[in-house]
Amino acid sequence: MSKNLTSRAEDYSKWYNELVVKADLAENSAVRGCMVIKPYGYAIWEKMQAELDKMFKETGHQNAYFPLFVPKSLFEAEEKNAEGFAKECAVVTHYRLQNDPDNPGKLRVDPEAKLEEELVVRPTSEAIIWSTYKNWIQSYRDLPILINQWANVVRWEMRTRLFLRTAEFLWQEGHTAHATKAEAIAEAEQMNNVYAEFAESFMAIPVIQGVKTESERFAGAVETYCIEALMQDGKALQAGTSHFLGQNFAKAFDVKFTNNEGKLDYVWATSWGVSTRLMGALIMTHSDDNGLVLPPNLAPIQVVIVPIYKNDEQLETISEVANTIKNELKALGVSCKFDNRTTHRPGAKFAQHELQGVPLRIAIGPKDLENKTVELARRDTLTKEIVDLNKVATIAKGLMTEIQESLFKKALDFRNTHITEVNNFEEFKKVLETKTGFISAHWDGTSETEQKIKELTKATIRCIPLNGEKETGSCVFTGNPSSGRVLFAKAY
Amino acid sequence: MSKNLTSRAEDYSKWYNELVVKADLAENSAVRGCMVIKPYGYAIWEKMQAELDKMFKETGHQNAYFPLFVPKSLFEAEEKNAEGFAKECAVVTHYRLQNDPDNPGKLRVDPEAKLEEELVVRPTSEAIIWSTYKNWIQSYRDLPILINQWANVVRWEMRTRLFLRTAEFLWQEGHTAHATKAEAIAEAEQMNNVYAEFAESFMAIPVIQGVKTESERFAGAVETYCIEALMQDGKALQAGTSHFLGQNFAKAFDVKFTNNEGKLDYVWATSWGVSTRLMGALIMTHSDDNGLVLPPNLAPIQVVIVPIYKNDEQLETISEVANTIKNELKALGVSCKFDNRTTHRPGAKFAQHELQGVPLRIAIGPKDLENKTVELARRDTLTKEIVDLNKVATIAKGLMTEIQESLFKKALDFRNTHITEVNNFEEFKKVLETKTGFISAHWDGTSETEQKIKELTKATIRCIPLNGEKETGSCVFTGNPSSGRVLFAKAY
Repeated sequence: MSKNLTSRAEDYSKWYNELVVKADLAENSAVRGCMVIKPYGYAIWEKMQAELDKMFKETGHQNAYFPLFVPKSLFEAEEKNAEGFAKECAVVTHYRLQNDPDNPGKLRVDPEAKLEEELVVRPTSEAIIWSTYKNWIQSYRDLPILINQWANVVRWEMRTRLFLRTAEFLWQEGHTAHATKAEAIAEAEQMNNVYAEFAESFMAIPVIQGVKTESERFAGAVETYCIEALMQDGKALQAGTSHFLGQNFAKAFDVKFTNNEGKLDYVWATSWGVSTRLMGALIMTHSDDNGLVLPPNLAPIQVVIVPIYKNDEQLETISEVANTIKNELKALGVSCKFDNRTTHRPGAKFAQHELQGVPLRIAIGPKDLENKTVELARRDTLTKEIVDLNKVATIAKGLMTEIQESLFKKALDFRNTHITEVNNFEEFKKVLETKTGFISAHWDGTSETEQKIKELTKATIRCIPLNGEKETGSCVFTGNPSSGRVLFAKAY
Repeated sequence: MSKNLTSRAEDYSKWYNELVVKADLAENSAVRGCMVIKPYGYAIWEKMQAELDKMFKETGHQNAYFPLFVPKSLFEAEEKNAEGFAKECAVVTHYRLQNDPDNPGKLRVDPEAKLEEELVVRPTSEAIIWSTYKNWIQSYRDLPILINQWANVVRWEMRTRLFLRTAEFLWQEGHTAHATKAEAIAEAEQMNNVYAEFAESFMAIPVIQGVKTESERFAGAVETYCIEALMQDGKALQAGTSHFLGQNFAKAFDVKFTNNEGKLDYVWATSWGVSTRLMGALIMTHSDDNGLVLPPNLAPIQVVIVPIYKNDEQLETISEVANTIKNELKALGVSCKFDNRTTHRPGAKFAQHELQGVPLRIAIGPKDLENKTVELARRDTLTKEIVDLNKVATIAKGLMTEIQESLFKKALDFRNTHITEVNNFEEFKKVLETKTGFISAHWDGTSETEQKIKELTKATIRCIPLNGEKETGSCVFTGNPSSGRVLFAKAY
């Protein structure tokens, strides 16, 4: 199975596309740009959702659900304050199909069933949510509103790739309303921290926290916080964003409240989201030429047991041992599947579980039964060892932590060795050609310079890091004064 | 707060509409027929989802996600085998908005961005899923496929009511594929049993399991299993359906497999779903003129503690006690909220929690501290008692089970006393006028008779019960032979 996977060195992009399909994560559908998320891929997404949802609730948020459709007029209201908002959207214009009188067996849109006002399938929900919040907020006592929504959204992308960029995708979008600017900024920062913690602790992906430049900001945002990750091919991937929206949406939708001094003011807002794009980041950070590599914290199956047998009697004895191990693992909080399918040979099972990134594989054969041992194989290092049957559950439990940490460390080392400081534009271009990764460089703070560099090199400013030391200098392109280094990269 | 609620006797329908809004469950949105599910309502739905999801997984199902859009041509394929399928759908015809050149500040559909093929927002996903399964199934080894999807769907309903009938609603839809007819029927029956168990054990709603008549069947189904509940106003509500689809969808989408004898055959199918409509059933089954009544198994907050105090010192002492109780409850697996808001008086808090159906309320005042007691109030019976402070957690834990069972029993008694056997059409009409509820009557098995009775009385056949004793007789309308009684009712 894995033999058929294109190697990363050969064609990274092809490797990714093949891996997503062969590991049974997702596939393209009959609908242009929309994907089918298959059960194994969805199981990983469910684990992500569960962890994120827990973190959102622990920080005081509640879930709710708002309509899929946004009336065109609400977009017009939004446009006033957030010009440039994506207009590539799916637009519903009719509400009925009918049998086509000219083509028997065919359907057509019923021309009589035209909507008075077109409905846009939500590309994001600020407009519908803020038009709703208007009715919920009168006084500072109604604030803060801390709501999250798990939903599907649609953006009419022309070039799509499974998980990374699809017309429809799944995401969560937090939309909060606050009485003060400081509180809203604190919320936007808090949620960016939540995303960073989730990325590092569960996805084992090291991220750089920063803010976007004006031109990369979300339309309508005053500040866009982000977490930026680095993929194995040296391209950056924006893994999550958290926006401080100021009073822009409150103004667009006329949402005022009486503050605790009795004065009317516009409400302060944030929004923040991560999507099924994280699946792409997860795959591209850890996986190898043999297939998927999953961090134990997000693996649907953490340990798989494969029996190696020649007859039913052997299988029966092995099954007993396997079930004991499975129960021991369950008691230790480790998920385990005993792959006792009789339709597949052990070799095919090994290949499948390797391709699908199961962190640990336990193989048990007749020899093992004699010796009271099992063979333990790590997916991340592709190493094997023979261990005592009675200790395997405890060892596996320990390895869950070790593998999780090891994957993070490996990704961190890669990321850290792929941040290059450059001090002139020749170096800048040379690094882009030879090494890739993040380029740490001085920039004069203008959108003009940013745009020129993008045109010349395809590299964009991924973020202005929040935790970096502040060092003044000269812009790598214009030589004008710079107040600090920013991170450039080619990006997904 | 609750004083403002219309009583059920006065106007049941108005009572329902007011309750949904006042208890903060949902509200109408800016989009015709689409609702906003507010955090408190969504929290109940989340508890339903969690339980159902667990039950689906325990019966071997996995979740996946399929596209929101269905190309028109797939509907045409489906029409061939399932004529009459709902055509009242939201249709996407364009993929871009643009600034309207004739109306500054306004947007319009970009006439250049017309889709080659219209996309229908899924009203249900058989078409898109079976066109996908076609590529997944070659051999009996690929079967069964046991997949569920949690999703939003859209049906262009002209008359909508919060939760009961909305243009967009949330649901789950199971879609399974099998090698044999017997296996598919067993699956459809199993899932109807799962729904019945969920309704009775978690929602505390007694349901009758049955099959639909031909005219009430899902388009494309060979048999539609259902669970039918009875609301307090004597109208029936279909709470869930599970369809045995035969080979209809396999034929419509040409899904064949090689069976274990090496012969090609069409795949056998089921689909089954429940939706946010269950929220309506939950509300209408248990609630009263004071507001919502929630079964403990689905209440977002099972116990609320309200402090009664005159000064900060008292509040502080009460808080200590309250937090101890809260921790004890948590250890017993009971969720508890300490409502220590300083912005609301105890009376307002009592009214709110009553309106929102929190099963148990604990009030603690200065006198209680002296006596080492608390006041315990049950929402379902509106009864109060003074109990020992040290025993309150254990008592509350026990009451969770007692209230759950008591609500079910009350609803069961109501349902059982609202099934009336009638043996002629005069009785039939009289019962409909005076008593409502289910009418158990003989029917000759023809759609014609069914239709005539519906026209004359608005009552429909809710189901042919599965567990009823088989008793032959004469049709209540035509006098023709009947092979068993069926249940008629007016229905939501």
